Amino acid sequence: MSKQGVTPQSEDFSKWYNEIVYKADLAAQTEVRGCIIIKPYGYEIWEGIKSGLDRRFKATGHQNAYFPLFIPESYLKREAEHVEGFSPELAIVTIAGGKELEERLVVRPTSETVIGKAFSEWIQSYRDLPLLINQWANVVRWELRTRPFLRTTEFLWQEGHTAHATEAEAEAETLQMLDVYADMAMNDAAVPVIKGQKSNIERFAGALRTYTIEAMMRDKKALQSGTSHNLGQNFAKAFEIRYLDPANEQQYCWTTSWGLSTRMVGAVVMTHGDDTGLRLPPKLAPIQVAIVPIYKNDDEKAAVHDTVQRIAKELTAADIRITIDWRDQSPGFKFNDWEMRGVPIRMEIGPKDVEKNNAVLARRDIPGKEGKQFVPQAGIVNAVKTLLAHIQQNLFQQAEDFRDGNIHDVKNYDEFKQVIEAGNWARGWWAASDADERRVKEETGATLRCLPFDQPGGTGQCFLTGATAPRVALFAKAY
Amino acid sequence: MSKQGVTPQSEDFSKWYNEIVYKADLAAQTEVRGCIIIKPYGYEIWEGIKSGLDRRFKATGHQNAYFPLFIPESYLKREAEHVEGFSPELAIVTIAGGKELEERLVVRPTSETVIGKAFSEWIQSYRDLPLLINQWANVVRWELRTRPFLRTTEFLWQEGHTAHATEAEAEAETLQMLDVYADMAMNDAAVPVIKGQKSNIERFAGALRTYTIEAMMRDKKALQSGTSHNLGQNFAKAFEIRYLDPANEQQYCWTTSWGLSTRMVGAVVMTHGDDTGLRLPPKLAPIQVAIVPIYKNDDEKAAVHDTVQRIAKELTAADIRITIDWRDQSPGFKFNDWEMRGVPIRMEIGPKDVEKNNAVLARRDIPGKEGKQFVPQAGIVNAVKTLLAHIQQNLFQQAEDFRDGNIHDVKNYDEFKQVIEAGNWARGWWAASDADERRVKEETGATLRCLPFDQPGGTGQCFLTGATAPRVALFAKAY
Repeated sequence: MSKQGVTPQSEDFSKWYNEIVYKADLAAQTEVRGCIIIKPYGYEIWEGIKSGLDRRFKATGHQNAYFPLFIPESYLKREAEHVEGFSPELAIVTIAGGKELEERLVVRPTSETVIGKAFSEWIQSYRDLPLLINQWANVVRWELRTRPFLRTTEFLWQEGHTAHATEAEAEAETLQMLDVYADMAMNDAAVPVIKGQKSNIERFAGALRTYTIEAMMRDKKALQSGTSHNLGQNFAKAFEIRYLDPANEQQYCWTTSWGLSTRMVGAVVMTHGDDTGLRLPPKLAPIQVAIVPIYKNDDEKAAVHDTVQRIAKELTAADIRITIDWRDQSPGFKFNDWEMRGVPIRMEIGPKDVEKNNAVLARRDIPGKEGKQFVPQAGIVNAVKTLLAHIQQNLFQQAEDFRDGNIHDVKNYDEFKQVIEAGNWARGWWAASDADERRVKEETGATLRCLPFDQPGGTGQCFLTGATAPRVALFAKAY
Repeated sequence: MSKQGVTPQSEDFSKWYNEIVYKADLAAQTEVRGCIIIKPYGYEIWEGIKSGLDRRFKATGHQNAYFPLFIPESYLKREAEHVEGFSPELAIVTIAGGKELEERLVVRPTSETVIGKAFSEWIQSYRDLPLLINQWANVVRWELRTRPFLRTTEFLWQEGHTAHATEAEAEAETLQMLDVYADMAMNDAAVPVIKGQKSNIERFAGALRTYTIEAMMRDKKALQSGTSHNLGQNFAKAFEIRYLDPANEQQYCWTTSWGLSTRMVGAVVMTHGDDTGLRLPPKLAPIQVAIVPIYKNDDEKAAVHDTVQRIAKELTAADIRITIDWRDQSPGFKFNDWEMRGVPIRMEIGPKDVEKNNAVLARRDIPGKEGKQFVPQAGIVNAVKTLLAHIQQNLFQQAEDFRDGNIHDVKNYDEFKQVIEAGNWARGWWAASDADERRVKEETGATLRCLPFDQPGGTGQCFLTGATAPRVALFAKAY
């Protein structure tokens, strides 16, 4: 146990994660199977993710709307692969208003069907295209094993749904939204992600192609952090989403969908956290600076009071999110508490600092003396802003270095097994079948995370079959 | 039928309302009983309401969190009045993950119970109080008769839930949040509201006291637009929400809850709309200015193009929400369309305006020539801003005048019946019993909307019983 009473990551990562989630006050457990309460500190991180995405969605021409929570069971059955993919996970309302329902209502696991039905009514002509809609909503999937944020029975997410006149436009949209996700993940959440395409086995139920952003957690497991699907004409045909083209001919639309969920909060925790607690990227941190006044008695408390208040006011006026910790506790207790909560900067102001017109800034991303500096109170706003930008950048760099150091190229199945066995990611040339891919999963526990967009070029020998392969694939154990 | 093809309000208000909701593209119908799709134009109005409230909630110290959609059936039974009030309206999940559930799950109709359970775990000491939480969420009530926005099976809302050490603090919170609602309604939505207390009969199931904001629609019916409940210790006792006071004694908390929903979108429609369509208050209007270029041929179109684009850019830079209507339609069609959608200002720019460095501004709130003015292009941003502020104010004033002209003081039950019969609101001294109140409802269809905070003072004779009454009550037919 560390001084915070947290199980070290190296001892039991899973236990570490659960403890951090509850000790840093991100969530609380409930008596409803697999459902958590997202507490204010966790919800504010989600609000940051949400506003970053919403801004990007609107800048790319999307509009928000809201569709019903309940889906008639018959809708789900219209797209064959889709119903097969989701059936085992459905929660179903059978009684309402005191009566048994004639048609049972499914609590949405995702909304392709109900939105497909709506699109079929809204779209008449090529002039109605593209139709670019996003929904912020809760969805329910009755999963066997659940973990806070990563996989919960109910979760919050956004789901984008678009319709286009051509396959090329739908593909461009699908890739654009993957870029939007990657941009938010890397720039706001400081989570480095690898963009790529899912294999046949791993793609969304009903999609032509699924694209993904994959991130490496601190236990080196992969976390799928957002997906974007080119649905081809599958849903358009199932729901009769058609348009009159300029030549007055009826054509089926090409549709896409893309989603990112509260799972991203889990990605932030597991990408940056350490044995003393959370480490939050400044852009998403609900509190960016925790000011801890240092005093031994009431005289000293009075001596620091005005300086603390004045600096707090300056920081707030500059839109820096702060808190002042006047609690009746020791500085050591407070330091630990703000470290646990992952606040990027701790500011200490004691009587000596007041005398010398100084303040101490301690970085959460660099422990000990190295991360501490004295700064003059004059110009403190700029000093804090600069430091927050450095911390944002450094957290990203640390995560990227960690990830890149743990991806290994493999030439054959033996090497592959060794790399996976050691808990790392394996990258190798790949030209094997779906059946081979399933066998690799069974034998090693690793799944094909994606066919990365970033390819070496040329061809190579498939690490499994020895056949000539046009591209490399990335494998890892995953959440 | 008006030129827009809308049934006039005077002919059939209910029909007018439904037509406006669909023709102005606020919502779409679905096959799920009583559920609507909130389309982008309607959703953006809700986003405006939401951000106005969220800002006010945070400024008064509240934090957002998220609680489960599903509530174990047993939770609802813990508060006797509460379960009685909501039982007939519940939607119940009985099957999940392919199996019948051991304990059935209720889709939340409101979250006092699940949040009460959480509060009982989070609150230990007086230091944890007050606890000030808000949730943005969807809720489900299986209502018999539904109408878009006003009463839908599923709706979006916020529900605030707070816990306090004393009854006085809980009461102050309950009243503060009613003020927040009234402030948003009047200043953002331009909906004049009357603040008051609900009678025993009309109060929330499980509350000690319910406060309400009541608005008069254009058909003179009342719409309850937001409510704030002092729950006393009812839920604290049902869920064991207790704290240790400074003397180390266990005490029950005093709790409150307060909610405002997408019904407010309906209030905006029915407060301001007229026979040509919506009229949106500028602060909530998704589009504040619709620019309609005027041209008869391609040469004229080219001649106005640059001026239109330049002005549009200036307005956008000043955070004014605009659209330019280059559609291949006649100006008349476009004028009708923007009137239907309730855009506060239509800006016309034709070749003559370009020549004279002018533009025409037409107000949606003042029809015909009176609402039209020529303004110089220089300084157009300020002219638009000033006009938007006037329109905001004028819509409020029109609604307030309309309302005040239709509330009548009554001295006896005959007068009362006449006023209600004529569709107006009746205000009279009131000291009758709950049974009397029920009888009035049965005999006249009018309900006691509230005991308004704004009282004449002194006492008077109850209009029903003749007894001495300490206060007046407000009655009306209501949605």
